[in-house]
Amino acid sequence: MAVITLLTDFGNKDGFVGTMKGVIWQICPSAQIADISHEIAPQNIREGAIALWRAAPFFPEDTVHIAVVDPGVGTRRRPMAARLGKMYFVGPDNGLFTPFIENADAKGETPRFVTLDQPRWFLPNVSRTFHGRDIFSPVGAYLASGVPLEALGTLFEDPVLLPLSKPARTARGYQAHISVIDVFGNCTTDLPAAAIAGHEIEIRVNGKTVHGLSPSYGHHPSGELIALVDSEDFLEVAVVNGSAASVLNAQVGDEVEVIFTT
Amino acid sequence: MAVITLLTDFGNKDGFVGTMKGVIWQICPSAQIADISHEIAPQNIREGAIALWRAAPFFPEDTVHIAVVDPGVGTRRRPMAARLGKMYFVGPDNGLFTPFIENADAKGETPRFVTLDQPRWFLPNVSRTFHGRDIFSPVGAYLASGVPLEALGTLFEDPVLLPLSKPARTARGYQAHISVIDVFGNCTTDLPAAAIAGHEIEIRVNGKTVHGLSPSYGHHPSGELIALVDSEDFLEVAVVNGSAASVLNAQVGDEVEVIFTT
Amino acid sequence: MAVITLLTDFGNKDGFVGTMKGVIWQICPSAQIADISHEIAPQNIREGAIALWRAAPFFPEDTVHIAVVDPGVGTRRRPMAARLGKMYFVGPDNGLFTPFIENADAKGETPRFVTLDQPRWFLPNVSRTFHGRDIFSPVGAYLASGVPLEALGTLFEDPVLLPLSKPARTARGYQAHISVIDVFGNCTTDLPAAAIAGHEIEIRVNGKTVHGLSPSYGHHPSGELIALVDSEDFLEVAVVNGSAASVLNAQVGDEVEVIFTT
Repeated sequence: MAVITLLTDFGNKDGFVGTMKGVIWQICPSAQIADISHEIAPQNIREGAIALWRAAPFFPEDTVHIAVVDPGVGTRRRPMAARLGKMYFVGPDNGLFTPFIENADAKGETPRFVTLDQPRWFLPNVSRTFHGRDIFSPVGAYLASGVPLEALGTLFEDPVLLPLSKPARTARGYQAHISVIDVFGNCTTDLPAAAIAGHEIEIRVNGKTVHGLSPSYGHHPSGELIALVDSEDFLEVAVVNGSAASVLNAQVGDEVEVIFTT
Repeated sequence: MAVITLLTDFGNKDGFVGTMKGVIWQICPSAQIADISHEIAPQNIREGAIALWRAAPFFPEDTVHIAVVDPGVGTRRRPMAARLGKMYFVGPDNGLFTPFIENADAKGETPRFVTLDQPRWFLPNVSRTFHGRDIFSPVGAYLASGVPLEALGTLFEDPVLLPLSKPARTARGYQAHISVIDVFGNCTTDLPAAAIAGHEIEIRVNGKTVHGLSPSYGHHPSGELIALVDSEDFLEVAVVNGSAASVLNAQVGDEVEVIFTT
Repeated sequence: MAVITLLTDFGNKDGFVGTMKGVIWQICPSAQIADISHEIAPQNIREGAIALWRAAPFFPEDTVHIAVVDPGVGTRRRPMAARLGKMYFVGPDNGLFTPFIENADAKGETPRFVTLDQPRWFLPNVSRTFHGRDIFSPVGAYLASGVPLEALGTLFEDPVLLPLSKPARTARGYQAHISVIDVFGNCTTDLPAAAIAGHEIEIRVNGKTVHGLSPSYGHHPSGELIALVDSEDFLEVAVVNGSAASVLNAQVGDEVEVIFTT
């Protein structure tokens, strides 16, 4: 059974996402459709890229991920589809798929990218402002129905990449950054837990210091600022039953200093 | 495969919408269900009607659209179902389906409306306050399962219609109105793009003036107030990578003066 | 067709819920998945328990309800699954299923509870912070696929129960409490309508008095404070086309005095 996911900055109020599902089911009636998020901050490609990157790997092989955070809609930015790892991706060529492309590169895979330049896979009337409905949903639905990637457009090799923050090695440990602040106010960083394995650490962020790693949230009293390994195996700073984002007045991008004490 | 959509003012927190899906799947287990919106402002029938009207046309033929914005629940307002165009609609008879009825009238179609007066299609216990669960969901699920419209109730011909704003022709162009403000703050008007085809225009709204139409958002610098044709082919006022609603302090219903300069 | 519901405090922004659906469809590709709520207040087990209790009974027999409000994730709190009434429940053993357990007890049923201690039903890597993804989603999907409850873990008999408020009989009627405040601001109480059948009543709450029961919202002018029987057959206080929660400055747990006047 074909699975399609949707990630956008369209919100859940206006009906844009429902409209995309209607378009998909006209083409691929049996598709299972999962919403990943529609609450990406408007035009925030980076936030969309990271949310997609955290969720997509848990979907079945051949899932089609349609992602639309698209400030360039209606301009000459390319609409694209790609095969990356074992899944398909459809959306604007603006960096939304950067983490998957970096990952494929790191593994030595050969990803395939196509520009969507074949209007026969689009809705008959393509608006200038809603390619999520008019281009990406039908193309994703055709992919899910078995149309081969190469039939959808022309191969290209230079997708737009987003500059994503990376942790830097320092004399005493790592200079990391907050990469995601979730609904609980937990602050995930861009530092993989593997980088600190075998070390005792101290963490300094926005004037506060945390000593050592906790196994999970429930091992400390409510309100305590702790550090732990998050569910994607990155270093995270959290407040037990509270919001680290509030306590730290944290923003995505804030620096997190990790010091090896052993 | 049967497709059902849901549009309500129930929000996504309390579980009302999930409850409706449970009822639907008890009757029509294979139904694909899409949420159009559950964030319609409480009791705002007009907002619900317009959101439904924008999304519904993109769904497959015979889709059943269940819409519940229902301040009159439990009073003598009629529960209804209808065949309009190629789709079915189920909900309170309070104007929610006005745009589809006007559209059918404009096309010379003969819509069919039934009052839902056959309790055998309802849940066994019908509450006074949640007909979305007790009447509209089961009736929609039976429609999606193949029960004919006429079996669901008694035909009638005078559905409640909502007075929706229309643009007025003026000496110099049109007096239009803001009809929708979306999640980005884009302000759509009630003026079809066809009405301004072939003209150069100037737009005045809440003390600001826009000259000419832009092809899309990305052709101007961030922060610029522009006008363009929206994805439903209506005139829209927007701010590039920003919110026209904030810049204009706009409300739905605000007047938009469109002046033909050629 | 298997039906699974999801209720969490994960919000709809971060993609956690979409991730859970990916995990489920890897194991049970045909599962129909309904979201009950993901906007439960963070760590508010009681709110989650009541939302689930109101929605779950409307789902088909054998539905698997996965509920994750889990402040104790990663500690020694038990992960559990249960058969209660005609449905399955999966989540942390922290009281989330209390109303169903009380209900089963009241009916003299023998519920079955298992501790999820068989890692072969989990994802290969179990994180310390996201058991919704790593334990509860796969276990729920296996249940929906037909794996028997007893195969999932070891039977136990002492699930954690939440102290839920109950109305108290008084000399003049009942001392009840607000149990749910919904999106409209309607305030439901813990007093079953059956307890007041045959009586005229007066209701006192936060300094305001309501005389008698109304049949539904639309029988009184906008803005009027009324009492009525809600869709689950409990006493509710509401404001017509307004918010009782705002008018009463009400919180869940506030006392509601019900006085029999006849």
